Amino acid sequence: MITARVIRISEPGGVEVLRLDQSEIAEPGGSEVLVAVRAAGLNRADVLQRRGLYPAPPGYPQDIPGLEFAGEVVRVGPRARCYQPGDRVMGITAGGAMSTHLLARERELIPIPMRLSFAEAAAIPEVFLTAYDALLIQGGLRAGQAVLIHSIGSGVGSAALQLGLLAGAQVIGTSRSELKLETCRGLGLKHAVLVKDAAFARQVREQTEGRMAQLILDTVGGAYLGENIEALAPGGQIIVIGLLGGARGDLSLNSLLAKRASIHGSVLRSRSLEEKAALAQGFIRELLPRFESGELRPVIDRVMPMDSIQQAQRRMEQNLNFGKIVLQW
Amino acid sequence: MITARVIRISEPGGVEVLRLDQSEIAEPGGSEVLVAVRAAGLNRADVLQRRGLYPAPPGYPQDIPGLEFAGEVVRVGPRARCYQPGDRVMGITAGGAMSTHLLARERELIPIPMRLSFAEAAAIPEVFLTAYDALLIQGGLRAGQAVLIHSIGSGVGSAALQLGLLAGAQVIGTSRSELKLETCRGLGLKHAVLVKDAAFARQVREQTEGRMAQLILDTVGGAYLGENIEALAPGGQIIVIGLLGGARGDLSLNSLLAKRASIHGSVLRSRSLEEKAALAQGFIRELLPRFESGELRPVIDRVMPMDSIQQAQRRMEQNLNFGKIVLQW
Repeated sequence: MITARVIRISEPGGVEVLRLDQSEIAEPGGSEVLVAVRAAGLNRADVLQRRGLYPAPPGYPQDIPGLEFAGEVVRVGPRARCYQPGDRVMGITAGGAMSTHLLARERELIPIPMRLSFAEAAAIPEVFLTAYDALLIQGGLRAGQAVLIHSIGSGVGSAALQLGLLAGAQVIGTSRSELKLETCRGLGLKHAVLVKDAAFARQVREQTEGRMAQLILDTVGGAYLGENIEALAPGGQIIVIGLLGGARGDLSLNSLLAKRASIHGSVLRSRSLEEKAALAQGFIRELLPRFESGELRPVIDRVMPMDSIQQAQRRMEQNLNFGKIVLQW
Repeated sequence: MITARVIRISEPGGVEVLRLDQSEIAEPGGSEVLVAVRAAGLNRADVLQRRGLYPAPPGYPQDIPGLEFAGEVVRVGPRARCYQPGDRVMGITAGGAMSTHLLARERELIPIPMRLSFAEAAAIPEVFLTAYDALLIQGGLRAGQAVLIHSIGSGVGSAALQLGLLAGAQVIGTSRSELKLETCRGLGLKHAVLVKDAAFARQVREQTEGRMAQLILDTVGGAYLGENIEALAPGGQIIVIGLLGGARGDLSLNSLLAKRASIHGSVLRSRSLEEKAALAQGFIRELLPRFESGELRPVIDRVMPMDSIQQAQRRMEQNLNFGKIVLQW
């Protein structure tokens, strides 16, 4: 047993329920790896979990937030083959990453490229695995296609922007903040759409010269559903990964049929271990070299000490961040 | 030019607007084939087109209904390679099949198996290509999976039932008519669900022992949207091919995300020629031998003379048919 320092959600509530505490972590068995966590990225799911709205899946701590981490391998289980103590690794987990120690399965881990610090690495897994899965794996985005990315200034948005450009697609990014759009232009965004009153389909038509978007990465949900179908090209695909604009929407099946379009709900957290491992391995093969070369890079809002978790979550709730907030021990 | 006899929609309206008329058909050019139509299947789209609610795509006659046909090749264009005069063929078209003559592109045609009459063949293309595309191509239905097929007593429903059983899937069929369910049991349906008040998810849970349906073939639309998501297994797929229960629905994106599910709108009529040709060629390779062997067979409600088109459409509007209504010259 290792005694780890952790962030504890003492009860559902505001940021004041978050406090430093201790927890016991078991020794690694089988192909498990014990990671000394150096930094953990902050996600909206952490905020929802703190409010009691997004429980961790069975088998994960309910009261320790944290869905991604970067750190150093401390000990490995008897059947672990890929890592040894001292290796720098990052990854996603379904809960409990805001802890000084974490048990991970080695096939879910991703080596940290030389050029990146732990804090930089902690900003990668959730947003880049999500964008990789949605745009490239599920969406099959190809060169020449148009992809519409909502909340382009968010963590997932700025990761998706980079992947879309890497894939040779026409990336159209939306935000309700001109400031965030301006910052994204610095990351290579050429087609920026400022959204007012949840309207954007007309601008997508203009930017694509009528071809519309083959793929839409949506973090908003209900409020954008109608315009999303409007903005979609025939045979196009909407991948919904977040519901910041409401969980219910009035769906025009007529339009869906006429366009032969599809709507996909997608989350990483509830996937099976095998699926997560397959995603991590694909990421290692296809995208990790692009981080090593510097073509892809994490977008970090700020790095804060772990004991500033209350301020960090408040900053996210106020939507003040551009890119990832990272907490480090 | 050939002078063909046709069914004409004189103006949008009730069945009384349908009448026998004449129309000029051009000689086959390129790889076109002139087909002497012997029989044409009746579809709901014909009824909608008559009412003025479902215009034919550009390039197809607006006032001659008919989406599928069986007949004999009369003449072929100078670049046609696959067929010669006398060959028996069937196929889908985006309009104009209720005519004694029709120009078709040869890659969209399907040879008629020896054992089938023209009337039997005319009952195959729309429903079996639709079910083939939805269940096997888009849905990727595999042995051991559970598939929920709504309106199992409809033309598409009874075709999908046969394909689902052929694929080794557990087929659950719904209908609002106990009589139609009973008839489907004769086609091999083991899991029949009588739908009252648009509720069926609970029965799907029972029939699948909690596994739910990996795939749902839906012809109802809005009224079934909520229960469809309820009845779906994690990662499952709803393919909507009809909207008999309304074109709008309240979509719970929460459930869609939680299940990582997807909703697809699908129609054959508006597809590109290339897509339709690819579908026909896949069908020839994969399913035609099963018609030749008798494992698959068209389900025919009744065969009527073409000049009974008014009675035929009325019968469909009153939902009295089980299987296809076929009109023959």
